[in-house]
Amino acid sequence: MNKDLTEISELGEFGLIDRLTHEIKFKNPSTIKGVGDDCAVMHYDNTEVLVSTDLLVEGIHFDLTYVPLKHLGYKSAVVNFSDLYAMNAHPRQITVSLAISKRFAVEHIEELYSGIKLACDIYGVDLVGGDTTTSRSGLTISITCIGDAPKEKIVYRSGANVNDLICVSGDLGAAYMGLQLLEREKIVSNGQTEFQPQFQGKEYLIERQLKPEARKDIIKILEEKGIIPTSMIDVSDGLSSELLHICNQSKVGCRIYEDRIPIDYQTAVMAEEIGMNLVTAALNGGEDYELLFTIPLHLHDTIDKIEGIKIIGHITKEEYGCIMETRDGGEIGLKAQGWNPLSK
Amino acid sequence: MNKDLTEISELGEFGLIDRLTHEIKFKNPSTIKGVGDDCAVMHYDNTEVLVSTDLLVEGIHFDLTYVPLKHLGYKSAVVNFSDLYAMNAHPRQITVSLAISKRFAVEHIEELYSGIKLACDIYGVDLVGGDTTTSRSGLTISITCIGDAPKEKIVYRSGANVNDLICVSGDLGAAYMGLQLLEREKIVSNGQTEFQPQFQGKEYLIERQLKPEARKDIIKILEEKGIIPTSMIDVSDGLSSELLHICNQSKVGCRIYEDRIPIDYQTAVMAEEIGMNLVTAALNGGEDYELLFTIPLHLHDTIDKIEGIKIIGHITKEEYGCIMETRDGGEIGLKAQGWNPLSK
Repeated sequence: MNKDLTEISELGEFGLIDRLTHEIKFKNPSTIKGVGDDCAVMHYDNTEVLVSTDLLVEGIHFDLTYVPLKHLGYKSAVVNFSDLYAMNAHPRQITVSLAISKRFAVEHIEELYSGIKLACDIYGVDLVGGDTTTSRSGLTISITCIGDAPKEKIVYRSGANVNDLICVSGDLGAAYMGLQLLEREKIVSNGQTEFQPQFQGKEYLIERQLKPEARKDIIKILEEKGIIPTSMIDVSDGLSSELLHICNQSKVGCRIYEDRIPIDYQTAVMAEEIGMNLVTAALNGGEDYELLFTIPLHLHDTIDKIEGIKIIGHITKEEYGCIMETRDGGEIGLKAQGWNPLSK
Repeated sequence: MNKDLTEISELGEFGLIDRLTHEIKFKNPSTIKGVGDDCAVMHYDNTEVLVSTDLLVEGIHFDLTYVPLKHLGYKSAVVNFSDLYAMNAHPRQITVSLAISKRFAVEHIEELYSGIKLACDIYGVDLVGGDTTTSRSGLTISITCIGDAPKEKIVYRSGANVNDLICVSGDLGAAYMGLQLLEREKIVSNGQTEFQPQFQGKEYLIERQLKPEARKDIIKILEEKGIIPTSMIDVSDGLSSELLHICNQSKVGCRIYEDRIPIDYQTAVMAEEIGMNLVTAALNGGEDYELLFTIPLHLHDTIDKIEGIKIIGHITKEEYGCIMETRDGGEIGLKAQGWNPLSK
């Protein structure tokens, strides 16, 4: 590449987005919040309308040799719903755009759509439009999700305060381990059509990778308990990366504890098998689609009683940095080593 | 391909969309209109929120050997704005998702964005979000546009009535001829870097292909005159295809007159040069982004006085079909031979 040009991998995804969008000024009173959170926010009359969009590319985001099309459709929709829940909003509509190469038949696309529609049915979302076209190679899926929330309930990444508790739903690292498992079995199968993959005792990992769910249930519980998080994000690129987003945008630091990070037994077994550091998987694995959020300290007892939510640390002053205290009492700085689709 | 499977080209784009979406039922009261028009329509409080989305794939929708990235960005945004105007609504926000291969540098993407931002500035639209990722080959651009309109002003494709006048803005076929010209010069240049293409006297064709505009001005004039069309669509796939959309959705027929179809002088010259039937280009060329709409007969004198709008025919009963009367008094049935991105 010409040496006057900057390789995109030098900036990474977030660097590139910042470079492209940092000086954008809004022209419409209906535009409330643009680039930089899980969704954009618009105000129409008394309701805030939120929009989120995702682009999934074959060979980059999914591998059809082990991902069934129906699962792919389901996951493509659910990850967008997750962005809406991460703002404490409700997804209402999606548009689905597909670029399809000639190796796909109508029935294949129907399979994909059946997964999208199943997700829409389960989460109560309407499929309202899209675009369908040809691609030269592979399948590209672009989904945009629209939803709403009352203004006072929207939770941004930027609202965390010093002493807030850091909470996470479910468990982390399992989707990443599921991917490792699928990749391993793909290599072992080596094109054999009669090959039976060995997934016994690891069904949870496969499910987390192939059929993730968005945490609508957590949003519902928080609402029932009258809790509005001070900041929130969904864990798509790994706990480290998401915590850094919250800390950067809230201008705070954080301290989390290794022994509090929720990890499933199957995740631990798989990490052991492939000789990977378990905490690395949980911190940097990604695709968990759990909710990471902060709440004021006085809500400690309320949140502590809710099943499926774990307090993993607390927010500190910005100058203390973003730290994880390890099991042996050491400290490591959190880094955004999460999955970066624009890295080399 | 397995003989139990259906090739996508057998159904075509609209057939595939219909097969995938025909039985979708809405779950949210905010969902007003889904697949089947230029935009989806949502109702939030007293405002209708509209969404349109487009997916553009390198090698299918654009060829970077003759399309500058800034122009591509501009056009990608404008064609989405055009979908909003085609509903008599105003575009307010866009999200931009890109899948980028390694042959692109940051500066290339900045060029693309500069065109998108220029379009946003000129049309008063806010860029509010998106997604940026890697592709294995080429560039894919997915743009979603959100806008609004008062409920009573939204114009669907389905509202045309018998005896309505059929109107079109600007002129047709020039963008298609611009594409022919660019393709011709590309073949002639055969990779020479110092090659000077011969565009003299054909600048308008090039501009219509590389830097189309959405007809915000026409929407403004219609509003000033108090005219709300009974149906409307933008001409992206060719006049024939768009007229058939209006007639199918309104359950009417139409009769247009060859000698009334507005065609620019440069379009006519180019058609002559390449030995193409001029009316074929205007009927099936596509990418004009003009507005095609119907109005009640009593508005004839008002619309006739507006510069840049031409009455090309009228709506008939469904059983009379969709007909063009040729210059010599013959009749031909309109067919959707427009550009079909899913045909072979």
